Amino acid sequence: MTPVITGFECSPDRGRGLARDMRIRWAFEEVGQPYAVRLLSFAEMKQPAHLARHPFGQIPTYEEDDLVLFESGAIILHIAERHAGLLPDTATARARAIGWMFAALNTVEPPILDLQVAMVLESDKPWHGDRLPAVKARIRDRLQQLSDRLGDADWIDGGFSAADLMMVSVLLRLKSSGLVNDYPNLAAYVARGEARPAYRRAFDAQLAVFEAASAGG
Amino acid sequence: MTPVITGFECSPDRGRGLARDMRIRWAFEEVGQPYAVRLLSFAEMKQPAHLARHPFGQIPTYEEDDLVLFESGAIILHIAERHAGLLPDTATARARAIGWMFAALNTVEPPILDLQVAMVLESDKPWHGDRLPAVKARIRDRLQQLSDRLGDADWIDGGFSAADLMMVSVLLRLKSSGLVNDYPNLAAYVARGEARPAYRRAFDAQLAVFEAASAGG
Repeated sequence: MTPVITGFECSPDRGRGLARDMRIRWAFEEVGQPYAVRLLSFAEMKQPAHLARHPFGQIPTYEEDDLVLFESGAIILHIAERHAGLLPDTATARARAIGWMFAALNTVEPPILDLQVAMVLESDKPWHGDRLPAVKARIRDRLQQLSDRLGDADWIDGGFSAADLMMVSVLLRLKSSGLVNDYPNLAAYVARGEARPAYRRAFDAQLAVFEAASAGG
Repeated sequence: MTPVITGFECSPDRGRGLARDMRIRWAFEEVGQPYAVRLLSFAEMKQPAHLARHPFGQIPTYEEDDLVLFESGAIILHIAERHAGLLPDTATARARAIGWMFAALNTVEPPILDLQVAMVLESDKPWHGDRLPAVKARIRDRLQQLSDRLGDADWIDGGFSAADLMMVSVLLRLKSSGLVNDYPNLAAYVARGEARPAYRRAFDAQLAVFEAASAGG
């Protein structure tokens, strides 16, 4: 069967490609796997039918035959293991690429999520302005270390892989903050990801969903 | 060769088993794989020799023959793929277990890290007391969802796997907060993990390192 993923019926990012279904769409496009999308309202995401797929009531999920998966990292790893094009061939390079996927999600993304919490949930709090510099400083520490490692390479460890797909996706969440622009090699890295035809197709597909929802609303 | 991991010469958690080398030690003990540990000072962790292993200057790392890995999730997945005992046999159950590893690291741990930042880095800030309830509420949301999914099962999805090793390790970081105690099935789940002989051996090994460092200092 064609894999089915879930996405926001009306994405809170207004079609900017920051919702996590974008990562999965991008992976499918890189390997040439057609997919279907089940769109969910916020209310539907908290209903039993979806909680059975995703215990934390989020998107994306992945369904194929009798397999139901959640977590974008696990879904992309699953796709990458079943199709050529997203993981290196040798065992050591493959293990390292998976290591970078975890690094994107567990070392680089958490301070970025902290900034998102600050901007979305705490922007009206009296401490918001005083706390923000430390939140951004923790992100800059990570960006500097990532920039040092990337150097003048095109991709993080050899050729393009799921590691880059995940890292670029995480860095894109910083776009509105402008923080990545202080690291020219990282800004170029993100731009290289965005310029990939598979990224563009995935981006256009999620944008079309948002535009249809907006027109309908 | 025997795999070599890195750990703190003198762990900031004072041997409570919360540093991330503990997860790797536990995985090695579960599968019966001997390992060696290279202990590092905080200064050594930021030196080029270690940054070559770990671009973010943290522990743990993993070295075996020509493979160098970082990120506890990637290291445990690597160990689980090469030894019996940490991943289910069928492809779908295996994919789901890996999904739960990502969930532990990318959905459950980030709000817990936020609490850690609040307690360690921001406890002297004027907003600390006002902000703490919201930080804890975000953790409770996750714990409730996890508790709902676990129900009265012993482990998160079938038999014990790397998913439980990772989830219990993440939940243990909440021990001093007492938050897990409000969810009796989660508290019992964590206790079941801690009671495993492999966990005990790993815990004792990391504690011995801390005690030796304390005695030496």
